[in-house]
Amino acid sequence: MAVHPHDIDARAETFAHRHLLGIEGLTAPEINLLLDTADRYVEQNRGENRVTNKLAGKTIVNLFFENSTRTRTSFELAARRLGADAINMSVDGSSVKKGETLIDTALTLNAMHLDALVVRHQESGAPKLLASKVNCAVINAGDGQHEHPTQALLDALTIRRRLGTLKGLTVAICGDILHSRVARSNIHLLNIMGANVRVVAPPTLLPGAVDRMGVEVHHSMATGLKDADIVMMLRLQLERMQGQFLPSQREYFRFFGLDYDKLSVAKPGALIMHPGPMNRGVEIDSLVADDIHRSVILQQVELGVAVRMACLDLLTAAPKAA
Amino acid sequence: MAVHPHDIDARAETFAHRHLLGIEGLTAPEINLLLDTADRYVEQNRGENRVTNKLAGKTIVNLFFENSTRTRTSFELAARRLGADAINMSVDGSSVKKGETLIDTALTLNAMHLDALVVRHQESGAPKLLASKVNCAVINAGDGQHEHPTQALLDALTIRRRLGTLKGLTVAICGDILHSRVARSNIHLLNIMGANVRVVAPPTLLPGAVDRMGVEVHHSMATGLKDADIVMMLRLQLERMQGQFLPSQREYFRFFGLDYDKLSVAKPGALIMHPGPMNRGVEIDSLVADDIHRSVILQQVELGVAVRMACLDLLTAAPKAA
Amino acid sequence: MAVHPHDIDARAETFAHRHLLGIEGLTAPEINLLLDTADRYVEQNRGENRVTNKLAGKTIVNLFFENSTRTRTSFELAARRLGADAINMSVDGSSVKKGETLIDTALTLNAMHLDALVVRHQESGAPKLLASKVNCAVINAGDGQHEHPTQALLDALTIRRRLGTLKGLTVAICGDILHSRVARSNIHLLNIMGANVRVVAPPTLLPGAVDRMGVEVHHSMATGLKDADIVMMLRLQLERMQGQFLPSQREYFRFFGLDYDKLSVAKPGALIMHPGPMNRGVEIDSLVADDIHRSVILQQVELGVAVRMACLDLLTAAPKAA
Repeated sequence: MAVHPHDIDARAETFAHRHLLGIEGLTAPEINLLLDTADRYVEQNRGENRVTNKLAGKTIVNLFFENSTRTRTSFELAARRLGADAINMSVDGSSVKKGETLIDTALTLNAMHLDALVVRHQESGAPKLLASKVNCAVINAGDGQHEHPTQALLDALTIRRRLGTLKGLTVAICGDILHSRVARSNIHLLNIMGANVRVVAPPTLLPGAVDRMGVEVHHSMATGLKDADIVMMLRLQLERMQGQFLPSQREYFRFFGLDYDKLSVAKPGALIMHPGPMNRGVEIDSLVADDIHRSVILQQVELGVAVRMACLDLLTAAPKAA
Repeated sequence: MAVHPHDIDARAETFAHRHLLGIEGLTAPEINLLLDTADRYVEQNRGENRVTNKLAGKTIVNLFFENSTRTRTSFELAARRLGADAINMSVDGSSVKKGETLIDTALTLNAMHLDALVVRHQESGAPKLLASKVNCAVINAGDGQHEHPTQALLDALTIRRRLGTLKGLTVAICGDILHSRVARSNIHLLNIMGANVRVVAPPTLLPGAVDRMGVEVHHSMATGLKDADIVMMLRLQLERMQGQFLPSQREYFRFFGLDYDKLSVAKPGALIMHPGPMNRGVEIDSLVADDIHRSVILQQVELGVAVRMACLDLLTAAPKAA
Repeated sequence: MAVHPHDIDARAETFAHRHLLGIEGLTAPEINLLLDTADRYVEQNRGENRVTNKLAGKTIVNLFFENSTRTRTSFELAARRLGADAINMSVDGSSVKKGETLIDTALTLNAMHLDALVVRHQESGAPKLLASKVNCAVINAGDGQHEHPTQALLDALTIRRRLGTLKGLTVAICGDILHSRVARSNIHLLNIMGANVRVVAPPTLLPGAVDRMGVEVHHSMATGLKDADIVMMLRLQLERMQGQFLPSQREYFRFFGLDYDKLSVAKPGALIMHPGPMNRGVEIDSLVADDIHRSVILQQVELGVAVRMACLDLLTAAPKAA
């Protein structure tokens, strides 16, 4: 996994993307560059002095139209650990209530001279719309049911650091695929990097377009997890299910909740992942979630900061090719 | 507009105001000093490294009893770009819910040793009350229907950078004058600087004291905008009109919304301004708002950061004469 | 009170506590070390440049499940004045709404590599639970009706700077003892430091275990305040009394509100303290609260920042003995 620092720097200059709106459209070398750069920050974050001045004088705004503990904090920490200023704007404190349009909010922030705008929005495509209006880097921190690219990157880094590569691995993504931007970003990334991707869910929690996503579809954990290297659980997004199909949580756990029994068909030592926050006892059993040998859920959180540092670093430092 | 830096520094030492509570009472030289100082920061904000250490070690608190995206963010950016620490306190997270008085909140913050307190409050006069209780600089970021001095200063800087001077210009301020602290601050400033000020509004949206404000009163855009150099639109503050006169938005736009038709009687190239956030299609047509030649709405936002840097700089650096 | 800096540094290396969960269990030398260290920061906070780099590169998270102006701001200022990054997480912006457990929130933050976690929570014992799960320092910023140790430390520092010592003083803690974590922490600290502690309250506002708290119990201000050196008023926590005994505020003031009449039996010059925010006219008369000679309420606030700097300094710098 070790990459000579000089190589990264040389590649970074050729990183032509100004925005990170999704995993779709990225190439394997681009993803590797992001992961290699993140790898360098992992050790910094584990050390005594976790702050550099690499982005000193830069301004990052976290523009969050949906609440999120972990993603917002992770981006804020990432910005500050690079020496940048991080300003938080949540929807509660924003002009949205006064009727300002999303685009006007973006143009207003842009006029204040930002270096990066990290956006979470309940509508798919909102970050792309913003990106077309501003001249700073836009990073998608989750948009509707579309993408959550930094989550997929941190998942990839977690796998790569444990298993050395993503190529050829069998990854079972389980649960609420329908509402999950995490699933979408991961499916794109894993396909690009040469993994074999399965989705495991009841038909009601699968999108209509699942046949065109390049995945194997399973409706049972018994077949879906068989010989899997990675079992990636998704959060059952109960808050997005109002007025829709809402499964009994006990029933759901019985058929699709990950426990040691269902896990037994996966490869010995298969890694257990979850993007958080977990509904313990709904999509995952606590014993499995806390398995110190196989669960890498907290490593995902740890590596998330490093991945976001890499994104901020590469996107704000890159020559601004359109 | 260029001023020799030495001149500013010499004048800054004589800047005797500890607070910026309003434009009323300022002199033309004082306003020019604030604008000259802001001018110096405009270039810094456009450059690569936008942070200086001029106010390193200083503490600025943004005490906002009303929500505001742009003003709070603008002040926060201004403080950080001068190297100061900026702490945000919004009413939602404050002791106000526990029954603490405004003055106790101020005294408590003051005891923590601040250098500046930026206050937005729904009551006219709240910043002045606070200023009488604390020994740090107080900056009014908008109080009730009273004043919003940094908005008037950034408007002035925007005009001055485009047209060279404010003296002798004809400025039409249009719309909801009644509820607008922006209008009040601008009327004071423009009168002090020798501009000719008109207000254009239906009688229901004019304050009773309009006759004593030193402005020409117009009830029609046709006469109000005639030969104007500047057309300054105000936001229709629908949220302040509950239980009062609430115009139909379509009717309002027909008579007082700015479009190219109404604008045609102004001087060719007349500048279009708006303090934001805009109600597009209510007080201003989108085509006019986005006119890249004549609308300076986004420049207003940009220069707002520089103006707030100037205020923080001069007020915290000045000798503390009472 | 002056301590040679070298002495503090020598003692600091032996400060074996990783967490500050309460005053209970601390020794007098440990409390003195915290106060001596805080003393050094008082002057820094009063000076021109209030920021050091002592904790540069460290990350402090303020995790507040209850709102608090003064405590959160005080900790945020303390962290920044030591050069650390301070990240705020309030319950409104947290994953708690998504059903994440307290422990998962803590583990998630811990995985991001923090140096200190400052926690306020409505449940007694929450900080202790968190401390058992993370490997950074946990500071209790108030938990349920249990403890609020930094408040007791800042109260002690205030007394010590005015009267030279705590030993042998008579301290009357008055009012809503039942709901007060401030009272509990102060009772522990004052007992450890050799003060004589009285509680003065109606029986309905005293905890059942008051007999085992090492205090004299008084039900009248006349006897409770007699010859007291310190009168420490508590806030009547009306918001915690829903469905319980809710006194008429006028009746309450008549019997237990501090005014000059009730104060007259205390020692001449007895100090008046209140942790804030005050309910003026309920538990304390405004004239007494604002007495510039005897009220030290604003000094408490001032010294609170220094005390929190001392806690952050000692806890994050100390060798990590479990």
